[in-house]
Amino acid sequence: MVVFIIDINKLYSDRAGKMRKSVIRELLKVTQDPEIISFAGGLPNPKSFPISDIESCIHEVLKNHGKTALQYGTTQGLRELREAIAERSYKEGMDISADDVIIMSGSQQALDTVGKLFLNPGDTALCGLPTYLGGINAFRSYEANLEGIPLDGDGMQIDVLEETLKKLRRNEIFPKFVYVVPTFQNPAGVIMPESRRKKLIDIANEYELFIVEDDPYGKLRYDANHIKPIKAFDDIGSVIYMSTFSKILSPGFRLAWTIANPEATRKMIICKQALDLCTNTFTQFITLEFIKRGSLDLHIMKLCEMYKPKRDTMIEAMEKYFPDGYTCHKPKGGMFAWVTLPEGIDTEVMFLDAIKEKVAYVHGKAFHVDGGGARSMRLNFSYSTDEQLDEGMKRLGSVIKKKLEKQETVV
Amino acid sequence: MVVFIIDINKLYSDRAGKMRKSVIRELLKVTQDPEIISFAGGLPNPKSFPISDIESCIHEVLKNHGKTALQYGTTQGLRELREAIAERSYKEGMDISADDVIIMSGSQQALDTVGKLFLNPGDTALCGLPTYLGGINAFRSYEANLEGIPLDGDGMQIDVLEETLKKLRRNEIFPKFVYVVPTFQNPAGVIMPESRRKKLIDIANEYELFIVEDDPYGKLRYDANHIKPIKAFDDIGSVIYMSTFSKILSPGFRLAWTIANPEATRKMIICKQALDLCTNTFTQFITLEFIKRGSLDLHIMKLCEMYKPKRDTMIEAMEKYFPDGYTCHKPKGGMFAWVTLPEGIDTEVMFLDAIKEKVAYVHGKAFHVDGGGARSMRLNFSYSTDEQLDEGMKRLGSVIKKKLEKQETVV
Repeated sequence: MVVFIIDINKLYSDRAGKMRKSVIRELLKVTQDPEIISFAGGLPNPKSFPISDIESCIHEVLKNHGKTALQYGTTQGLRELREAIAERSYKEGMDISADDVIIMSGSQQALDTVGKLFLNPGDTALCGLPTYLGGINAFRSYEANLEGIPLDGDGMQIDVLEETLKKLRRNEIFPKFVYVVPTFQNPAGVIMPESRRKKLIDIANEYELFIVEDDPYGKLRYDANHIKPIKAFDDIGSVIYMSTFSKILSPGFRLAWTIANPEATRKMIICKQALDLCTNTFTQFITLEFIKRGSLDLHIMKLCEMYKPKRDTMIEAMEKYFPDGYTCHKPKGGMFAWVTLPEGIDTEVMFLDAIKEKVAYVHGKAFHVDGGGARSMRLNFSYSTDEQLDEGMKRLGSVIKKKLEKQETVV
Repeated sequence: MVVFIIDINKLYSDRAGKMRKSVIRELLKVTQDPEIISFAGGLPNPKSFPISDIESCIHEVLKNHGKTALQYGTTQGLRELREAIAERSYKEGMDISADDVIIMSGSQQALDTVGKLFLNPGDTALCGLPTYLGGINAFRSYEANLEGIPLDGDGMQIDVLEETLKKLRRNEIFPKFVYVVPTFQNPAGVIMPESRRKKLIDIANEYELFIVEDDPYGKLRYDANHIKPIKAFDDIGSVIYMSTFSKILSPGFRLAWTIANPEATRKMIICKQALDLCTNTFTQFITLEFIKRGSLDLHIMKLCEMYKPKRDTMIEAMEKYFPDGYTCHKPKGGMFAWVTLPEGIDTEVMFLDAIKEKVAYVHGKAFHVDGGGARSMRLNFSYSTDEQLDEGMKRLGSVIKKKLEKQETVV
């Protein structure tokens, strides 16, 4: 057995000291116990994976492009895949070309790239309260200060954002970007309306900052109308847009993409060269073939058909099993319900009780950069079976009830 | 057309200013002209890819593990793949377990992780003169100072390394690590003997620094005996070892791995969470299946049978077509020949002539952190056909001759 005798702590960078374990990734380990019903991860339903279609695509890819699909690719990514993405983006209202697209090794790499490229230690960036914790982790790993802007039922409160930016400017703090998940926000599930989206562009212009628009769930739409991404209103090149194939095809393929102005794109490519040279070529080819066959849109339709009733099952089970006093905004798309429990409950503390009752979630604090969110929790409805959804919510309801009863006893 | 009106340069981080385009990645673009014979990239021969074996592995994977192989995986990587790597590493003399292994999205990500975790702006790290430029790019992207240590026919000159460390220590500079490619060094092709490997461990102990051992080519051995990695002599946990499936299976799969002490491994996993959550699950499963069938060792044997004569063809063509006065250490493995030309030639300048004659290489300066290497160039022999090897070297010989003749005229 080897013993490390050097004092490794002397060797770490300052930023290494700021890196925190991802709560979700750690939870995923805990929840590998098959008896636990987990609402923690943002995982697609495994039954949704179009396995035989994928195998058929692979056969085509290996037959026609084997030598290229197994080789290194360019850092920016497979041109035909970028063209397909540009075409799809155009239909969503974004006036862009394949040159504006970079294929990333998952959205997390896009977030890391933004952090690496724009954040000096001590720099400020803005994000929602709550917001996706992968964004928090990426930006904090570059020693950024994250300033939280509260959400309401229409997403980030733009008036608070403006006030905050004014206040920061008075203190000579100039944030580098605002990070938003405007459609089916993770974790809150809300949609930012068009008026706020347009207003964001004005703010970016006025305060000279980027908007980092993270859009993994826009296609998983159950009862909302299509709403254009912020990037579609971006006439000044201020939006760095990112989306992913993880939620609409396969997370195992590790494929996402960015759309940005030519100068930011150029620099992000240089940055990515040093990160991983290029994204997985093989899964890029498979995904391209899947899109070319028209299978992706069909698959997205199937996913929506699968997830909408799951959402309903979860919301109904919540009504059935949860004690009064909670709030939950019924999400119109995406993968998550965001629940806030009555005063006095700390979902981080309650997690241990939940695990004992074989049910898991992500506690709300994980999504807050200001220490808030103690009463909230994120519940994923896409991954579980209908039986698990019902049984899991029953268990969770019972955990919450016990917690509240205990409280009353103490009082 | 969108015009970006924000002054983006005000928004970049300081480190963004230190990021340089990878010369090789840029060359790859130039050399996409099919008439150019390129010795530039470190690409496996596309004919080597075991396409039908891979398709058969995929069939098994999708049949038995489809739902897991297309889903998110753990950050550390597929346990069975880590076990297979640990078992193979044990045979090479490394006393390690699957817990010490992380599956990375290519070696470049391993290099980036080391940079992010250990390098503050202004920190010093040591590397060979010459050394792999992907390492240079990764470490410089964290604003490190790179101190070069010259190589001889036995790799990094350990006595110069010690002198340099002493000198740095007198100036109160404490380097974080030494980056080495000890076996079939990229680009120089040389092998570091066991005595120097052991000595490196003593130095790491004495100067309290890490050894970052990059070993992509160790298995591509043509007439050298097996030599244990530095990690095999590491009784103090000072070596962060990395290797890759890119050169022995498929670069398109983007799969590499690290082996390090438990504390560094723990921290690298946290770092990787924010980089990309996890490595491509699908290609991990395929590669595991390929190994389990015993196909990997057979494939490596085939690669050596394919590349050894290619090396010979290149070296012979060099003797036939190059004017006198060059030196080339005949590599005993790997993918590269490293050539140094007569005084007065600048291979970076000569590159334009070479492109005109439809032949490409990587100029030596790209591998030097001290501005040296002007007379050298790296030539890849694994990628080209035998005809291309002969014809390309003929073209290159002619370019060099013309350059030398011009020089004489000038004098």
